[in-house]
Amino acid sequence: MSGGAAMPPPAFPMRPIGIVRSPYTDRAQVPRGPGATHDAEGVLEIEPEFEPGLTDIEGFSHLYVLWVFDRADPPSLLATPPTDDRPHGVFSTRSPARPNPIGLTVVRLLKREGRRLLVHGVDMLDRTPVLDVKPYLSSVPAAEIRRGWMAEAEARRARDDDRPEGSAAGDA
Amino acid sequence: MSGGAAMPPPAFPMRPIGIVRSPYTDRAQVPRGPGATHDAEGVLEIEPEFEPGLTDIEGFSHLYVLWVFDRADPPSLLATPPTDDRPHGVFSTRSPARPNPIGLTVVRLLKREGRRLLVHGVDMLDRTPVLDVKPYLSSVPAAEIRRGWMAEAEARRARDDDRPEGSAAGDA
Repeated sequence: MSGGAAMPPPAFPMRPIGIVRSPYTDRAQVPRGPGATHDAEGVLEIEPEFEPGLTDIEGFSHLYVLWVFDRADPPSLLATPPTDDRPHGVFSTRSPARPNPIGLTVVRLLKREGRRLLVHGVDMLDRTPVLDVKPYLSSVPAAEIRRGWMAEAEARRARDDDRPEGSAAGDA
Repeated sequence: MSGGAAMPPPAFPMRPIGIVRSPYTDRAQVPRGPGATHDAEGVLEIEPEFEPGLTDIEGFSHLYVLWVFDRADPPSLLATPPTDDRPHGVFSTRSPARPNPIGLTVVRLLKREGRRLLVHGVDMLDRTPVLDVKPYLSSVPAAEIRRGWMAEAEARRARDDDRPEGSAAGDA
């Protein structure tokens, strides 16, 4: 159908290069939903064998961290995020219950101590497996970003908040 | 040593959710190095079983694409990138030869046609396996980003370029 239909490609095994040390031990502790800010500090503890791979990383202000949602629910193609009361396609959300449970977080690098990277902005649980670390190099200008259903959900909530008390339905 | 040393964590198998259709069939065709811009258009072809996961994605202007460097060299902890003549730790670079060969690209979503996402800014080879797609939600302000050795390498090149002809060593 798609021009040269082939066998489904094989799975690629990904092996953690370290773990996140985080103040969060339970998903309920991680700030989520509207206005959530990630101000927690944590440590990326890279395995000794990979320490040479960190050479020169201290020159970068921000890093991408790729990690595994190792305590997520089984994947679901539709997700109802904390920011909305409607379901959306999982690829339109940050839901952990994804076909490939890979998380992506931008953190600020505060300090490197050998194979430990002290970072700001963790939203992972303690002992989360880290798959990769990459330098954060450039940004899409904020004015160019459209945030789809997220912006709509925020607008809906703002309207509800503006209504006189008692007119909103239940605990929004 | 690190407080509760345990068995090395297991590998996590990641299964592609689709492939990238790209104009690039060979790594030499992908723009790399200083000033490289990624203006190529391509298509993320998501497998039919995952199409419901794309619901509402058309509202987002930019997407993160996580994919597999399936034609990369074996991992190397030090990499000499096209932007520099000195080696750096692989986690300080975008080198494909990483312990976990996961690529990360920000693309602009031009159009959705069913399970095909037409996007701008691909830098992957044709038929690259896609692991995940996520909405791109926010940026680090450009003024806050420090780019470590990359900025230094650019400055060095600029100095070399400013020298009178003939005084630079070899083909820089």
